[in-house]
Amino acid sequence: MSCNWGTELWDQFDNLEKHTGWGIDFLERYTKFVKERADIELSYAKQIRSLSKKYHPKRSREDESRYTWCLAFAATLQQLNEMAAHREDLADSLHTQIVCELVRYTQELKAERKTHFQDGRRAQQHIESSWKQLESSKRRFERDCKEAERAQHISDRIDLDNKADGEKRCSLKARQTAQQKQQAAEDSRKEYVTSLNQFNQDQHQHYRTLVPVIYQRIQDMEERRIERIAEAMRLSAESERKVLPVASRCLDAMMDAAESIQPRKDTGHVVEVYKSGFDPPGDVEFEDYSATMRRSISESSYLDNRAEGRRHSRKLWPFLRKNKVN
Amino acid sequence: MSCNWGTELWDQFDNLEKHTGWGIDFLERYTKFVKERADIELSYAKQIRSLSKKYHPKRSREDESRYTWCLAFAATLQQLNEMAAHREDLADSLHTQIVCELVRYTQELKAERKTHFQDGRRAQQHIESSWKQLESSKRRFERDCKEAERAQHISDRIDLDNKADGEKRCSLKARQTAQQKQQAAEDSRKEYVTSLNQFNQDQHQHYRTLVPVIYQRIQDMEERRIERIAEAMRLSAESERKVLPVASRCLDAMMDAAESIQPRKDTGHVVEVYKSGFDPPGDVEFEDYSATMRRSISESSYLDNRAEGRRHSRKLWPFLRKNKVN
Repeated sequence: MSCNWGTELWDQFDNLEKHTGWGIDFLERYTKFVKERADIELSYAKQIRSLSKKYHPKRSREDESRYTWCLAFAATLQQLNEMAAHREDLADSLHTQIVCELVRYTQELKAERKTHFQDGRRAQQHIESSWKQLESSKRRFERDCKEAERAQHISDRIDLDNKADGEKRCSLKARQTAQQKQQAAEDSRKEYVTSLNQFNQDQHQHYRTLVPVIYQRIQDMEERRIERIAEAMRLSAESERKVLPVASRCLDAMMDAAESIQPRKDTGHVVEVYKSGFDPPGDVEFEDYSATMRRSISESSYLDNRAEGRRHSRKLWPFLRKNKVN
Repeated sequence: MSCNWGTELWDQFDNLEKHTGWGIDFLERYTKFVKERADIELSYAKQIRSLSKKYHPKRSREDESRYTWCLAFAATLQQLNEMAAHREDLADSLHTQIVCELVRYTQELKAERKTHFQDGRRAQQHIESSWKQLESSKRRFERDCKEAERAQHISDRIDLDNKADGEKRCSLKARQTAQQKQQAAEDSRKEYVTSLNQFNQDQHQHYRTLVPVIYQRIQDMEERRIERIAEAMRLSAESERKVLPVASRCLDAMMDAAESIQPRKDTGHVVEVYKSGFDPPGDVEFEDYSATMRRSISESSYLDNRAEGRRHSRKLWPFLRKNKVN
């Protein structure tokens, strides 16, 4: 079966108008869909970026740059930021390559469709006008025939009456009128024939040439619209696909970051940071206060010893010998 | 260099308390980070689902199920829905496998840390108490020595005075007192020695056994915490990675959908839907009203013909001959 609109749908003007209008509605809907898709992607990317920024370590009381778990977390945040950047690119390409392009194309398409259906209407109006012309000349012919017929009838009637009763009614006028009417009918017959031929020619051209050409253009327009949709869908899927290898690399890097964490190294670094180098205190020695008991004493030496004793007893604990081991 | 906290950081109690507290703060921060990551993912998935639902074709005035571009769009929406479902799974697994687990672990860790530092404080208090005991017995010894010394001095003085002027002052009490004081000093010397030995033993145990054990446990705790972070990061990256092949398949399906679009097939379907099967009208025939002109007429036949003529002239255009071609 042929699927040529010009020949198969010659009488479906209104339906084609509706159908192509529906096609454009779809195009606008699809464009809106891609825009919303892009907005979702952008919003997602922005949230990821914010998250990355929020948790990026600020310089705090401890120097974080050496602990492997701090470095790993910072690397993870960096990778997230990277992924966000690529998703922003995706959103951007969906927007510029698809949405904007489709908006522009839709305007063109609307203008084109309007043109084709205006052409269709114009052709329709032409053929209708030709038909009216035909109808008009046909009715005139019909009317003139009847008038000629009537005038002839009147003329014949007068002749008959004259024959019947031997009077001489004036039949000349009647006969002249009948002849005029007959001539008029002849003239309008010619005009009718001309109109008829013109109409049939117009009709032939309308259905064999104009309509097929216009409807073929409409069909091409529709096929191009459909092809454009397909192209937009392909482009959309391709754009999204580009993000996948990036995401994969980012996740690999995050995995590497996780695997770079070395707990033992980190607790070793804590030692480097905090180690005082001091040794724990050794044994406390016995302080023999009984020695002074056995000396011969004067008031002054008694007082001296007492003061000295007090200095020893106030030593703070732990008693540190400053032996740094390097 | 050793990185054993028990031996290297024996005097860094406060710093270790701060450092491990900071480690737990990080854990809580990281947990919050993963939760927010999961929330972003869930929000994204929900938006995609909404989008898919919003644009899913409703049954409208045209039967959309046969046009390839409608089917392709419906397939695309279906795939988006699929992707959204997997991202919801990702959000869910981040939540249950990582966030909930880390929250639980953090509570355990806080309790464990509290225990270790309580043990440390207790050990510290014990050694301080032992030190106070030592100091106390040392001061008593010192005081008793001085009192013994003073009593002896008084006793010696009395003897000297007696020798000098021949008087017999009572020196017995003084001599007894001196002996008592000397005994007291001996006793407190013994106590001091005992306290000293005890303290040195306690101190030795404190720095050679208790502190190393407690601080080793703290170090192990810290290393386990770091390992847990690494595990969470690995798990997170793995969960995200699982989405990639799904996304890839969905995009392949979307690409297939785009490539399944056939514009010519669709315009052909339009023909099937709308084709009336009628032929365009053929030539209009000449209607010869002049024939009746030439017949002999009666009033009645005149009227009959007039009515018949009118029926012909009122035929609507286009004049359709019902010749359906199948």
